[in-house]
Amino acid sequence: MLIVQKYGGTSVGSLERIENVAKRVAKTKEAGNDVVVVVSAMSGETNKLIDYAKHFSPTPSRRDMDLLLSSGERVTAALLSIALNEMGFPTVAMTGRQAGIVTDKSHTVARIEKINPEPMQNALKEGKIIVVAGFQGITEDGQVTTLGRGGSDLTAVAIAGALGADKCEIYSDVDGVYTTDPRIEPKAKKLDKISYDEMLELASLGAKVLQNRSVELAKKLGVVIEARSSFNDNPGTIITKEEDIMEKPLVSGIALDKNQARVSLRGVKDRPGIAAEIFKALANENINVDMIVQTIGEDGKTNLDFTVPQNELELVKKVMEQFKDEYEKVEYDPDVAKVSIVGVGMKSHSGVASKAFETMAKENINIEMISTSEIKISMIIDEKYGELAVRALHAAYELDK
Amino acid sequence: MLIVQKYGGTSVGSLERIENVAKRVAKTKEAGNDVVVVVSAMSGETNKLIDYAKHFSPTPSRRDMDLLLSSGERVTAALLSIALNEMGFPTVAMTGRQAGIVTDKSHTVARIEKINPEPMQNALKEGKIIVVAGFQGITEDGQVTTLGRGGSDLTAVAIAGALGADKCEIYSDVDGVYTTDPRIEPKAKKLDKISYDEMLELASLGAKVLQNRSVELAKKLGVVIEARSSFNDNPGTIITKEEDIMEKPLVSGIALDKNQARVSLRGVKDRPGIAAEIFKALANENINVDMIVQTIGEDGKTNLDFTVPQNELELVKKVMEQFKDEYEKVEYDPDVAKVSIVGVGMKSHSGVASKAFETMAKENINIEMISTSEIKISMIIDEKYGELAVRALHAAYELDK
Repeated sequence: MLIVQKYGGTSVGSLERIENVAKRVAKTKEAGNDVVVVVSAMSGETNKLIDYAKHFSPTPSRRDMDLLLSSGERVTAALLSIALNEMGFPTVAMTGRQAGIVTDKSHTVARIEKINPEPMQNALKEGKIIVVAGFQGITEDGQVTTLGRGGSDLTAVAIAGALGADKCEIYSDVDGVYTTDPRIEPKAKKLDKISYDEMLELASLGAKVLQNRSVELAKKLGVVIEARSSFNDNPGTIITKEEDIMEKPLVSGIALDKNQARVSLRGVKDRPGIAAEIFKALANENINVDMIVQTIGEDGKTNLDFTVPQNELELVKKVMEQFKDEYEKVEYDPDVAKVSIVGVGMKSHSGVASKAFETMAKENINIEMISTSEIKISMIIDEKYGELAVRALHAAYELDK
Repeated sequence: MLIVQKYGGTSVGSLERIENVAKRVAKTKEAGNDVVVVVSAMSGETNKLIDYAKHFSPTPSRRDMDLLLSSGERVTAALLSIALNEMGFPTVAMTGRQAGIVTDKSHTVARIEKINPEPMQNALKEGKIIVVAGFQGITEDGQVTTLGRGGSDLTAVAIAGALGADKCEIYSDVDGVYTTDPRIEPKAKKLDKISYDEMLELASLGAKVLQNRSVELAKKLGVVIEARSSFNDNPGTIITKEEDIMEKPLVSGIALDKNQARVSLRGVKDRPGIAAEIFKALANENINVDMIVQTIGEDGKTNLDFTVPQNELELVKKVMEQFKDEYEKVEYDPDVAKVSIVGVGMKSHSGVASKAFETMAKENINIEMISTSEIKISMIIDEKYGELAVRALHAAYELDK
């Protein structure tokens, strides 16, 4: 098998941990596999470098930041290569450039445009373990770029796709994807398998495990991911195509997102295109609007409700100020949370939504807004009931069984 | 003017010091010059990374070491670029690769083969300050290399040559080249100008200021160097062509090298080629033999005396063991020192050597070996008289005047 393994910052956070990673890689190689390892910077390093940059400027150029931040992964890659060499394994350490990773020119948030797999293929043919510095690439004209948060996951998935790897193992300090956050519901169970789409919808659950961009890329390239812990030998969670999951559960997981705020515009003027203008203005500020509900009140006036990330609320208020002649009143509620029920089984089963509403009613939790997709039901509720709602739903769908 | 400035590890050893460097660079730019800055890793960083590597292996691969060690200069280059940007100066930070520095394949001790100056020339045309990560380059086939000790000096000199810069300023914590080590003779004077060849002969004096490889390269490329301190505004020492030095002093400086040991082979067999064999065996072990004296003793037997670096003496003993059938007796004296008198003026003046011998005689110091070149007289003496000899010669040649 050809296996791509990615080890995050915590997994390589000290020399001892790098040694531990080397042993894991060695074991995989000794089992007869070809191995490509992608590594992050040692935990703390990237933040240290960001602090250094901020010492000089609140707004360092993104090009300079890329040169700065791409150094950490190079260090880890070299050290892991040295450790594996010492254990008797021939290796080749590669920067993003040497691994053939070509990105667009969006410094600090670059997108991988293509991978030239030849150097890696040649090294694998020679029986070498390849150690790649994650998170980084190079533009067509030779500029150093980085891939943004979770970038090393993207590197691993993209390489797995380019090499046609059998599996891409993403190691962190969490041993997989759970039915819900175990800190909220200790009865949460680790999922054996989950589809790409479910994983994407469970982003708030999975943020610590996998960034959405990596899951999207894995889906596009058909890369099978296994999210595992580097601190134990437990099997992880496989993230794969829906077709490859035999038993499709009705509900796979419950997610809670507390970084939500609600904006309510009352008495919005009845002018065509006004909603479009408002959302365009928010988009221009890179504010991610989530749920949107438009209603006609009893007085015949239009109300527009939507949710935004809580930490963007001040910026949202400024944007709303620009439109103050277009509505009678605006209300902001920072204390809301979004509870989501996710499962591919919903597609073919009815009654999932009604069970959610019943469960909320039984707990006397008021549902303020609802949105649904093929595989997800999301509800906006009072933030203080967030954990209670998660536990109640977890039990209602028998996820602890 | 086009000025290349190089700042060493101590000069960029903290965020405050990098800020100080930014101010110096800004001043040079504001004076109407084009500026290319070459930086080392922050002091301590390279040693930290070497320690990390040694944690995993006593003999890490040189290719991995290059990937590892080249990261520190990138950090400094990015940070200095950010600092200059914030002060309002457009900049472009470049890795060795981006600065067009192509080396041979000798990892950790690579030689610069050529520089493609176009990217730098274009940036200068746009009025930008260029900040280059020193110490590193890239092979024709894309491998990361480093240039060995003092490598950032080499980067600066090579860039100055490739761009036809008017001057290459090398900044460190020492403000120039002195007539001798001021710790030995407090009356030592800073030299205004010195020729490349004198500088090369004064290596042991100048080691803290400039590595020989950089001086050799500067001589080859005709690059005028100024060795200066980044901690004050004192003028430094200009290192240039002999022709550009109007007043050629008889003696420019006195150097003391205590890392010397003497090997004496008594009664060497009278067989053709035996000396060649011995020195070839030493060269194979990378042992640098300095002075060699062959004499015929009163008994008609051949004696062979030579000096080697004191810290290589154990290795030398092993090599001599291989030849034990070729001589009657071997003696080792680790307690010798080499005192050298250097000056281009010697070429056209006689009496320099005799003054040296007189001075030694007056101080009752026995001269064990002598070697001379066009611009240098070196004497091997008892190590304990090293400092005394330096002070006496410094006074004899009136270097304190």
